[in-house]
Amino acid sequence: MYFQNPLSFLLRAAQIYPDKLAITHPHVKHPVFYTYGVWSQRIQNLAYALIEAGIKPGDRVAIIAPNSPMIADAHHGVLAARAVICPINTRLTVPEVSYILEHSGAKLVIVDYEYTHLVRDAKVPVVVSNDTGRAGDPYEDFLDRGRRFSRERGWAGLEWEPNENAASALCYTSGTTGRPKGVITTLRGSYLAALANAYETRMTYDSVYLWILPMFHACGWTFPWAITLAFATQITLRTVDPSQLWYHFLNSGVSHYCAAPTVQISIVNAPEAKQVPRPITAIIAGSAPTARLIGDLELKGITPVHVYGLTCTYGPFMKSFPQPTWKDMSLKDRARHLARQGHSFLTASPVRVVYQPADGEEPDAAAELVDVPKDGKTAGEIVVRGNLAMVEYFRDPEATRKAFQGGYFHSGDVAVVHPDGYVAIRDRSKDIIISGGENASSVLIEQELAAHPDVLEVSVVARPHPKWGERAMAFVILKTHSVAKWQGRHDEFEGELKRFSKGRMPGFACPEWVRVVDELPKTSTGKIQKVVLRKMVAKL
Amino acid sequence: MYFQNPLSFLLRAAQIYPDKLAITHPHVKHPVFYTYGVWSQRIQNLAYALIEAGIKPGDRVAIIAPNSPMIADAHHGVLAARAVICPINTRLTVPEVSYILEHSGAKLVIVDYEYTHLVRDAKVPVVVSNDTGRAGDPYEDFLDRGRRFSRERGWAGLEWEPNENAASALCYTSGTTGRPKGVITTLRGSYLAALANAYETRMTYDSVYLWILPMFHACGWTFPWAITLAFATQITLRTVDPSQLWYHFLNSGVSHYCAAPTVQISIVNAPEAKQVPRPITAIIAGSAPTARLIGDLELKGITPVHVYGLTCTYGPFMKSFPQPTWKDMSLKDRARHLARQGHSFLTASPVRVVYQPADGEEPDAAAELVDVPKDGKTAGEIVVRGNLAMVEYFRDPEATRKAFQGGYFHSGDVAVVHPDGYVAIRDRSKDIIISGGENASSVLIEQELAAHPDVLEVSVVARPHPKWGERAMAFVILKTHSVAKWQGRHDEFEGELKRFSKGRMPGFACPEWVRVVDELPKTSTGKIQKVVLRKMVAKL
Repeated sequence: MYFQNPLSFLLRAAQIYPDKLAITHPHVKHPVFYTYGVWSQRIQNLAYALIEAGIKPGDRVAIIAPNSPMIADAHHGVLAARAVICPINTRLTVPEVSYILEHSGAKLVIVDYEYTHLVRDAKVPVVVSNDTGRAGDPYEDFLDRGRRFSRERGWAGLEWEPNENAASALCYTSGTTGRPKGVITTLRGSYLAALANAYETRMTYDSVYLWILPMFHACGWTFPWAITLAFATQITLRTVDPSQLWYHFLNSGVSHYCAAPTVQISIVNAPEAKQVPRPITAIIAGSAPTARLIGDLELKGITPVHVYGLTCTYGPFMKSFPQPTWKDMSLKDRARHLARQGHSFLTASPVRVVYQPADGEEPDAAAELVDVPKDGKTAGEIVVRGNLAMVEYFRDPEATRKAFQGGYFHSGDVAVVHPDGYVAIRDRSKDIIISGGENASSVLIEQELAAHPDVLEVSVVARPHPKWGERAMAFVILKTHSVAKWQGRHDEFEGELKRFSKGRMPGFACPEWVRVVDELPKTSTGKIQKVVLRKMVAKL
Repeated sequence: MYFQNPLSFLLRAAQIYPDKLAITHPHVKHPVFYTYGVWSQRIQNLAYALIEAGIKPGDRVAIIAPNSPMIADAHHGVLAARAVICPINTRLTVPEVSYILEHSGAKLVIVDYEYTHLVRDAKVPVVVSNDTGRAGDPYEDFLDRGRRFSRERGWAGLEWEPNENAASALCYTSGTTGRPKGVITTLRGSYLAALANAYETRMTYDSVYLWILPMFHACGWTFPWAITLAFATQITLRTVDPSQLWYHFLNSGVSHYCAAPTVQISIVNAPEAKQVPRPITAIIAGSAPTARLIGDLELKGITPVHVYGLTCTYGPFMKSFPQPTWKDMSLKDRARHLARQGHSFLTASPVRVVYQPADGEEPDAAAELVDVPKDGKTAGEIVVRGNLAMVEYFRDPEATRKAFQGGYFHSGDVAVVHPDGYVAIRDRSKDIIISGGENASSVLIEQELAAHPDVLEVSVVARPHPKWGERAMAFVILKTHSVAKWQGRHDEFEGELKRFSKGRMPGFACPEWVRVVDELPKTSTGKIQKVVLRKMVAKL
């Protein structure tokens, strides 16, 4: 008997809509188009192939691939073999990948041909996918072996995981410091997170989901299962190329995609950008969208849905739920509201924002967590438990214990709760700028600076200041058409932006320094790496 | 910590959309309109009042009421007191109600003023609601006591049920024979069923749900929770009056309602019926809609969604999932497809149709259930287990054991599985007409006869026949405008309908007898009581 297992969504889709297009992979030499019927057969073959290869219930299977059918297959097929999917970030280095393979104890790796160099030190069997979908491709041969091994026993021949709290995935966080940590999530949690994502973003049978977010990132925020649950169609692209994205926005009936603000900025600023023929829901996470980005998206017929989450919460578990009153607001006011993290998803337990231990004080495991007041001012830490909180850090009881002080998972994100109950992230503790005893939020400063007409993207970090302790330093990418305008006059632009800041924010928050840059350091998932900016600042 | 508890939906709604209209009760002397903020406060008061009245976790609280705010409150408030809601059909007799009160062991009854006679023998405290929402109403006084007893502890002062598998409801089936049986369902199951109902019927923030289905029937198919989950608005009406329904279809922005086909027939035939200003989703269950009904609904802008379920499956757990190809079909063909029961809901385990033991053979508890082939012909029994199957018949281990032969709940409904995997009910075993060794389905005969232009509603049962063993007898209600046409000529109409049958169905299925009647015997939930028709036939 199976209760809450995201694999059930695939079997339903294959049963109810076998002829519906499930997945397409168009920008390769031999594009593929699989219906739910065909795709589920391929996934079944994968499950049998894994079992034949010796994979036992609970074993980890590592996947290294860009967005492509193989990694989509694996989100279902690995679970069908009662194994745990361990997707690995393709932008890691060989030592990092080796560490994860070692630490996860993965018994097998399936790797895309472009990333085989990452597993050259692997001590376990490696299956290579050439991403062709054709005979002769080692991955296809692997599926073939599975099919033969199945001896036509079909889905009925695959034993269903009896425990809904068994692990579904092991995702390593792309920690900016220290060793990556392995996040264990469950079948039940993946099922419930997928349900919430489908419902909260209104994905249905008619939806077409375009993959922009890497699927290796927190299992694509559970969208591989949410899309299937909705009987929707998904399009995979190996790379994120704004021209290609616009081709699909304009020609493929795309209705949904997920991406961090930085990617969204490149989308709205692409030369191909125009009104989309079908309304699109853009799911934004990673950081809050600015008013400018929201306005630019809406102008093109793209509705931003701002969600918030972490790998440890199955990706998104909060949403800035729109209010009817927002319709009458100015774009700026609306953006200010939409930029908040909001409330928990349908299937998540209510989020809490709790007082943090004072500086230097060791957190007391036994101490009860106390909520901050709903005053929009008092900062606390976002904590969560229940359906959409991870189980543990794999093979790291000490880190797990620390993360679950007081019985809640501690996000490390600092937030306030507004009088209307909406949670709004101020900053990660280390991103707060303490200037003359005042706490300045780098997020709020960025929101304001992004409104300047020449600013494409901006990131703000603290820089030591002899008088104030710290002061804000802004790193700015100029818009394409503004680059020439300020050519050789970056000093003047600095003055211009500082003047722009005055009156928009308190003096202690105004940037003391502005540097124009060509690009900002980002993680593979599009998050700006402030840790790198801070290192640059430290050397100034 | 709470995991899967439908009460969580109310708390979310009150937190995220406190000012949204949650529930209105317009057709009473003092209409009420409660926002989610106000409503959740009333429900909190109810929970405290129950606790003050001595209700302990797991206790049953009986509710006897027409659709009204009180019974809607109770679906949340009783759960908030960690008690079990036991809604009782208002159309039962005093001995039946007494039996249920006794058998359920209810510790308290909340009863609507119109039904106080039903609890005159009650041996437990009774709270009467005058359905006024005003001071002086005993129910309002009860809520007031709860508020005072709470001493402003709020929701935080109410202990949350820690076990998601604790009972949420005890619903007695309106058995046509024998004592009613009490169906125990769980918090988790109610949560998942509500999720599925909201998703499968596309209920969202913008939806307005009109109560037609009695809320006392299988907890209103979990819609009290599904509506709240979606942040939708609900309208309660004490009675089902087509004119009143049409007033709301035309003026209140109604988007969803649930009703059995008989009620739907009265809706489309009401003199007020016309094109609705906003598309409406009509959720149909109880029996399959006929082609005529589907056509009549669609003409008015009402889209039928055909679902199937039982009290033992939290109400609907299957849906006839529409296929894109249906759009090009004739109404009759489309109706034939939509009339099937289809596939399991999102959160339900896949349904099975299994061979039944041969006549007179005792079912073997240990024997494995075997699926019938997908040939559209071989009849078997619909069985189900998992998330959306009840736990047990309360205080009846023998009936529970019988119902769960082979580990699955046995629905008693006989069905076939079509080659496309859609399940279609043929008949309950006792509704099959065995004529000259052939099995004729009364459902299929009814579908055909309903196509006759003078037929408003029809029900078919077996009647003993000297030559063929059994033969079909049809009971027909004529359409209003056809009554005069056939006045005094029912014999001629019988001939007309028998001629109409020829060619439309095999000879052994054609009705041998036709009787024109003014009304058909129905259960309180609109199901035709074939058992009563069979008794009439037995006396002929």
